[in-house]
Amino acid sequence: MTESICLKDLAAWLGREIEGDATVALCGVASLEEAGEGDLAFVRSERFAEAARSSRASAFILPPGLDAGGRPAIRSPDPGLDFARSAERLKPRLALDPGIHPSATVDEGAIVAPTASVGARVAIGPGCRVGAGTQLHANAVLYPGVEVGEDCRIYAGVVLREGSRLGDRVVLHSGVVIGADGFGYVRDEAGRYSAVPQVGYAVLEDDVEVGANSTIDRGTLSETRVRRGAKIDNLVHVGHNCDIGEDVVIAAQAGLSGSTVVGREAILMGQVGSAGHLEVGEGAFVGAKTGLHRDVKAGSRVFGYPQREEWAWQRTTAALSRLPELIKRVRDLERKLGLRVPESDREPDDDE
Amino acid sequence: MTESICLKDLAAWLGREIEGDATVALCGVASLEEAGEGDLAFVRSERFAEAARSSRASAFILPPGLDAGGRPAIRSPDPGLDFARSAERLKPRLALDPGIHPSATVDEGAIVAPTASVGARVAIGPGCRVGAGTQLHANAVLYPGVEVGEDCRIYAGVVLREGSRLGDRVVLHSGVVIGADGFGYVRDEAGRYSAVPQVGYAVLEDDVEVGANSTIDRGTLSETRVRRGAKIDNLVHVGHNCDIGEDVVIAAQAGLSGSTVVGREAILMGQVGSAGHLEVGEGAFVGAKTGLHRDVKAGSRVFGYPQREEWAWQRTTAALSRLPELIKRVRDLERKLGLRVPESDREPDDDE
Amino acid sequence: MTESICLKDLAAWLGREIEGDATVALCGVASLEEAGEGDLAFVRSERFAEAARSSRASAFILPPGLDAGGRPAIRSPDPGLDFARSAERLKPRLALDPGIHPSATVDEGAIVAPTASVGARVAIGPGCRVGAGTQLHANAVLYPGVEVGEDCRIYAGVVLREGSRLGDRVVLHSGVVIGADGFGYVRDEAGRYSAVPQVGYAVLEDDVEVGANSTIDRGTLSETRVRRGAKIDNLVHVGHNCDIGEDVVIAAQAGLSGSTVVGREAILMGQVGSAGHLEVGEGAFVGAKTGLHRDVKAGSRVFGYPQREEWAWQRTTAALSRLPELIKRVRDLERKLGLRVPESDREPDDDE
Repeated sequence: MTESICLKDLAAWLGREIEGDATVALCGVASLEEAGEGDLAFVRSERFAEAARSSRASAFILPPGLDAGGRPAIRSPDPGLDFARSAERLKPRLALDPGIHPSATVDEGAIVAPTASVGARVAIGPGCRVGAGTQLHANAVLYPGVEVGEDCRIYAGVVLREGSRLGDRVVLHSGVVIGADGFGYVRDEAGRYSAVPQVGYAVLEDDVEVGANSTIDRGTLSETRVRRGAKIDNLVHVGHNCDIGEDVVIAAQAGLSGSTVVGREAILMGQVGSAGHLEVGEGAFVGAKTGLHRDVKAGSRVFGYPQREEWAWQRTTAALSRLPELIKRVRDLERKLGLRVPESDREPDDDE
Repeated sequence: MTESICLKDLAAWLGREIEGDATVALCGVASLEEAGEGDLAFVRSERFAEAARSSRASAFILPPGLDAGGRPAIRSPDPGLDFARSAERLKPRLALDPGIHPSATVDEGAIVAPTASVGARVAIGPGCRVGAGTQLHANAVLYPGVEVGEDCRIYAGVVLREGSRLGDRVVLHSGVVIGADGFGYVRDEAGRYSAVPQVGYAVLEDDVEVGANSTIDRGTLSETRVRRGAKIDNLVHVGHNCDIGEDVVIAAQAGLSGSTVVGREAILMGQVGSAGHLEVGEGAFVGAKTGLHRDVKAGSRVFGYPQREEWAWQRTTAALSRLPELIKRVRDLERKLGLRVPESDREPDDDE
Repeated sequence: MTESICLKDLAAWLGREIEGDATVALCGVASLEEAGEGDLAFVRSERFAEAARSSRASAFILPPGLDAGGRPAIRSPDPGLDFARSAERLKPRLALDPGIHPSATVDEGAIVAPTASVGARVAIGPGCRVGAGTQLHANAVLYPGVEVGEDCRIYAGVVLREGSRLGDRVVLHSGVVIGADGFGYVRDEAGRYSAVPQVGYAVLEDDVEVGANSTIDRGTLSETRVRRGAKIDNLVHVGHNCDIGEDVVIAAQAGLSGSTVVGREAILMGQVGSAGHLEVGEGAFVGAKTGLHRDVKAGSRVFGYPQREEWAWQRTTAALSRLPELIKRVRDLERKLGLRVPESDREPDDDE
């Protein structure tokens, strides 16, 4: 299925120098351990030199200084990046033929670019626009008025609620739900909850990627926005009216309550939670499982729940480990001074 | 698409007084910032008075005492509630035409009300009943024996496993799975896990709303029940045999292990987790990320992991911040008394 | 729908002794409370003896020593296990007719066993293989090159990305996504994130079960593997290149970052999170909400965040409850010795 490319041409495409046989034909990428005839592998550092020597790959991408042992190789200052690029070239993604599958349902009021691929049983509502080169995989559902830019990949089973707007090269993995109603209620005179109509929409700018089964709710009155280049992992929740900055990274199972603002290039690790209406500053780093209950300063690093600056969290965590011993030391002091040791200290237990 | 309504009629429908031009025509709702000609906006409090003055909305809902500056306005003791009602009126939800889409698969043994809307490629199994005015959006799947009441909205891609029973006005957002098998296993003689057949079912009473990609498992032998008016956010897990009380609120990514009982009007914040077979009392408040490992008293407020009463959690959390300094104070005391300072205290580190 | 079976025959099939009327006809299973005519119920222990006496079940499975009161009963050393087996026999799972539903899309290059059931609107891509007795429910999507073994149950809406491989008797609940791209990026020269092509695949061995809306990403270069008999609950995230051991149990909403290795028979409770590239040893127990940031020894029990051995975690947690009182005791010591009590201790607050 994949055509082969010779080492020399790949290196030229990458803009890198080669060593060894320039004509070796490459048709795939693999790990050092699994590579075989025709595969390109890469070596991140000297640490993997032994694995490289025993690898059966046909060629390697090597960092400066690592001995190629005469085997065909591309020299790269960033082997990981060049390998990723090579993989994109050598293992092309699943291609769908352009055109609309006969089982798809496309409203006559929708505009679908001729080069877009609309898979089996995709539903496209009135007023939708689908850009050139975009793939909509099986069972994807576009409610009315959804706009999808060019070269997007929308995997099987994705749901885009009415009015959602996607830029170019957006990737949504299976099960993603964009633009569901946010979680907002008012209590009526009888004390019962009544849903606040969520009449806004969700916007995902260019180059945003969202992992499987994540949910990004629509704005209440206006928009929820995920800005250019932000990367969101699986099972993440983004509440209504959030504003996620450019190149932000959000790891799996993190959850942002409504109206959270995340500044550009901030990183939120797995299972982070944020109370609503907070601001996470540009470039901030929020450690795994952190529970945010107030703003995070730009460039700062916070951990824990309640959140603390990294140094404070580490100091506190270390001190906590010493707490049981500290209780004994205080008891010793009290005895030395003839003070009464509290009852609780003689029969240690949880006094909560 | 939306017909307009004049201010006077809207106010009469809400049961409120008006000021200014009673004839202004309204055809939508928007935020103060985004509103334009024909839009209704609302002002929650004096804090937003400046934003109101510069808004281009055609009319406003205002709290008592806030100066309308001569512009058309509805006076309301609860602007948020009345705005929500107005939004429901002015931005009607997506309407599907009644009837069954030709691509849907409806078993001949199913009973679907003539006013129900069955969207593209919906699957309805034998023995199902779908009530009047209910919408089943694209790709929704009703396994055999599912009962859905009246005026429900079941969004695209929802799965209702066999025997699930929904009351009236239930809203299930995309990706919700109701009635999947619970997580129960017995180990056989060889020590391997064997699934306990989950032969119960799930019941969602009237006015329950469940957010995108949440999962509510069926009962093992009888039922999992979510009672009238409970509101559940995105990516929430409700295990088998749980009983969620009336008007309970469960925020995103919370998870309840099997047989958890939650009393009416309790509130569980985001990412809360509950061990199985616990009871959360009526009106209790469980703070974000709390890990429940024992019952929660009615009306109490708990936080943290392990859970503590709010006052204890706050006191403990505050004390923890002072722990590193406390260690120094104890060392000073030991020195003053000529006691030996522990090795660990001279070279601070984590002694775990 | 279910045929009845007499008590004697059921007992013989289970290999157990009976008491009372051997000819009573059973046609279902139920809880003690809900059981009626024709139902089998079970009694776990003496604790439920009263509930058994008032139950209207036609027969019971009883542990040794518990008085049957003359009613029809099967004696079992493990009533739970035998009840589960009986339920499997008496309440057969939803059966689909073998064959391919006319609305399904099966690529001509796919091989589907004649005894497999392919439901409405299932999509099966080129190069797929589906084994004997396997059920693919409505809207399931098999991307190209997916292999599914025998007697699997793939519920409605499951997505299997290209190259995924499933063993026999695998059960995937609705909304599960297998083989989505992992979360891996490199930064290019301009500092923008570029996705690392995820060209591996996911393997689920025999008897694996995965709960609703869980996601298991494909390997980056080779495989993500879930080994024989592992049981995974709802909304769980398994990152790329993970290796989940045989008979491992992972409870709801746990998340494993990339390349986590979990040894056989380990148990991870709900909402556990793991940093990447960690190893959880065989038979280890990881308590609910634990945040793993380093390896877990085989057979050990860890809790908390940062993780601690169970004894250390319990000791620390108990000590923490006593911390506020400890601060007072230190102040008393300081006063007794005429030392200056820190400012912060006179007006208690959070000094963070």
